[in-house]
Amino acid sequence: MITEQRAARMDISDLKDRIVAGDRRALSRAITLIESTRADHRDQAAALIEALKSVDREAIRIGLSGTPGVGKSTFIESFGMMLTAQRLRVAVLAVDPSSTRSGGSILGDKTRMDRLSRDPNAFIRPSPSRSHLGGVARRTREAVTLCEAAGFDVVLIETVGVGQSETVVAEMSDLFILLLAPAGGDELQGVKRGIMEMADIILVNKADGDLKPAAMRTCSDYAGALRLLRKRPQDPEGFPKATTVSALHEEGLRQAWDEMMTLVNWRRDHGHFAGRRAEQARYWFGEEVRQGLLAQLATPSAQAVMQDYAERVAKGDMTPTIAAAEVLERLHS
Amino acid sequence: MITEQRAARMDISDLKDRIVAGDRRALSRAITLIESTRADHRDQAAALIEALKSVDREAIRIGLSGTPGVGKSTFIESFGMMLTAQRLRVAVLAVDPSSTRSGGSILGDKTRMDRLSRDPNAFIRPSPSRSHLGGVARRTREAVTLCEAAGFDVVLIETVGVGQSETVVAEMSDLFILLLAPAGGDELQGVKRGIMEMADIILVNKADGDLKPAAMRTCSDYAGALRLLRKRPQDPEGFPKATTVSALHEEGLRQAWDEMMTLVNWRRDHGHFAGRRAEQARYWFGEEVRQGLLAQLATPSAQAVMQDYAERVAKGDMTPTIAAAEVLERLHS
Repeated sequence: MITEQRAARMDISDLKDRIVAGDRRALSRAITLIESTRADHRDQAAALIEALKSVDREAIRIGLSGTPGVGKSTFIESFGMMLTAQRLRVAVLAVDPSSTRSGGSILGDKTRMDRLSRDPNAFIRPSPSRSHLGGVARRTREAVTLCEAAGFDVVLIETVGVGQSETVVAEMSDLFILLLAPAGGDELQGVKRGIMEMADIILVNKADGDLKPAAMRTCSDYAGALRLLRKRPQDPEGFPKATTVSALHEEGLRQAWDEMMTLVNWRRDHGHFAGRRAEQARYWFGEEVRQGLLAQLATPSAQAVMQDYAERVAKGDMTPTIAAAEVLERLHS
Repeated sequence: MITEQRAARMDISDLKDRIVAGDRRALSRAITLIESTRADHRDQAAALIEALKSVDREAIRIGLSGTPGVGKSTFIESFGMMLTAQRLRVAVLAVDPSSTRSGGSILGDKTRMDRLSRDPNAFIRPSPSRSHLGGVARRTREAVTLCEAAGFDVVLIETVGVGQSETVVAEMSDLFILLLAPAGGDELQGVKRGIMEMADIILVNKADGDLKPAAMRTCSDYAGALRLLRKRPQDPEGFPKATTVSALHEEGLRQAWDEMMTLVNWRRDHGHFAGRRAEQARYWFGEEVRQGLLAQLATPSAQAVMQDYAERVAKGDMTPTIAAAEVLERLHS
């Protein structure tokens, strides 16, 4: 891993050329650069992303969500190996806003995907820790752009199935895949409806051994539920759909990939693929403006003012509305 | 309903006195005033809320969430009548951010609660339509304050069980109640985990007739699930809890109220009641500051700038990051 000092000295044009030439070390360095929060690094990162805009390469960006225990690492490893066996180049990134709390980041340990991490056609980048979701989103979006420019055919963006991270990942993916385990019959483990509605394809993993019947049943339950959802204009007949896989036994992976390609090709033919990317760019533009406005509250002086007023509000000396009006006046003066 | 012109002429000090004296028409007028978006009305509303701060009355604020079909109106009517029969005064408010989409606001039709709306000890205020969640939140918070100052003992804040409105309601309630119907065995109808974690008491309604066994089973399922959650410091042993009611047959309502009072009294004795209100005031203060900052984007000129850059971003002429940086510079110049 490169130090911040060395990153600062990097020549952006040279870095761009090496990324485009497929230099993995250059790609790693560039991702470290975009992960840096130093102002000069941010400027360099923006320049790099701008320079890479002219590179006309397009990967299929696949968002993958699944709660802990569904076999996500095993799936990524098996699915990734299946793709590289077809001479496709695969990059794996992660969005994990919870990494600070859980004490370890997903993908933090490459040994979780031992075979894939040693595959020359695969590139695995662990999730950076200590960052808030807004920062993670920008970092990952930019890393996707870098991997695309580096010539990867597929970029897998992994996230844990909790909180808002699915929305973040779905908004930077061409396809959003939900990985589930066979249901244990506990209704409360049910997938949030909003997440199910984001999914293009639901994969029920662990369709092997004793769990196979439960996996088939779960798949059929979800297939039924998906049929109840309104058909989306960006989908051909039969999508979104649910199917079973066994990452452990490497079964159903090729079929899953075929389904994904069917959907991608249909969307390309009907203009929805480019349309979705344009909508996503709009979304991220709006998000960056909003985050930029809220960043005014992150300075030490603003924090001190906020703290002071918050105390008065908590004590009941001021109403939230009046206190907020005074703070806004002070921020704008 | 008062017109905006008449609201503008209201004397705030007089209005305050009449609210405190329990004049229902004055209360209605004051709520209309706080619902107005006119700048002069906003100023008057802030002055009124500030003036009412000195009134030392405290209602029990009960947030109530439930998806359509669980029997929320019937529950509010039966529960409200049970409270007024005990000589308690009950106000019912609603947070319904979806009212614009669904074409009708919850509580919009008082005939849904025919008996309660004619009860002199009850006050029902429909949810205002055409407003975004931020605005609804402030409106409802202020309406709660008005009802409290008007001497109501219980303020029920109803919301539909979709989206973010539960968080909004939970953040302005002393107790958060989740109303459920007996489960039909469909796993996907399961309550979102986050909402279950907010609930202080889960009430399974329709525990009558043919549905009674299913209601008992659903209640026992949720009771089991609640036991798996970590005990919260603001709760005595046995809370959060699940119990059954029949709003239609008016059964279990008194017991539900007793459970609520047990929780409220325990929290009062242990300082959690006032502590929660102080935390909520802090939260709303922060929210109002954030909404105030984002309001810069709502002006026509800012909208035009945003639109212009969004087009360029969607076409791929600019990256979201660079476009956002330019917009922020223009907003601050």
